[in-house]
Amino acid sequence: MSEENIIFVGKKPTMNYVLAIVTQFNNSDMPRIVIKARGKAISKAVDIAEITKHKFIQTAKYESIKLDTETLEGENGPSNVSSIEIILAK
Amino acid sequence: MSEENIIFVGKKPTMNYVLAIVTQFNNSDMPRIVIKARGKAISKAVDIAEITKHKFIQTAKYESIKLDTETLEGENGPSNVSSIEIILAK
Repeated sequence: MSEENIIFVGKKPTMNYVLAIVTQFNNSDMPRIVIKARGKAISKAVDIAEITKHKFIQTAKYESIKLDTETLEGENGPSNVSSIEIILAK
Repeated sequence: MSEENIIFVGKKPTMNYVLAIVTQFNNSDMPRIVIKARGKAISKAVDIAEITKHKFIQTAKYESIKLDTETLEGENGPSNVSSIEIILAK
């Protein structure tokens, strides 16, 4: 069993992701959860991490926060999009 | 003279902020620039940092990336908003 779980943030409501993370932290031996997002979902990923940390799992800490740029192949050729990877550890 | 300069990301176009940062890095002795944003502007702050780093100042590094929650007083009482602080150092 992997020692981390990855949550990709997309178009669902913020609290859906928060509750998924809280459930995984509480019901498993996962010591850390990786939250990944691209483009406009980056703001939502930060909300998700902050709400999880402040309202649900106060012992959680940021193990690392990384920013990067990914190249996506689109209909009009490649385009660059920023990404974030937040590792939350309990 | 302060050893760092703070850029607050708001509603202006992304490239306005990028060019302001590049100009400050190139025309002054500032060893680092702090990029701050709240709420939906967080995604833009990450774009600004990544574009500055990849396209203009390739030697720049992330010195720290911090997430936080701030309480704002609004018309309907206090509300929480996520924030990011990115320190870019050359």
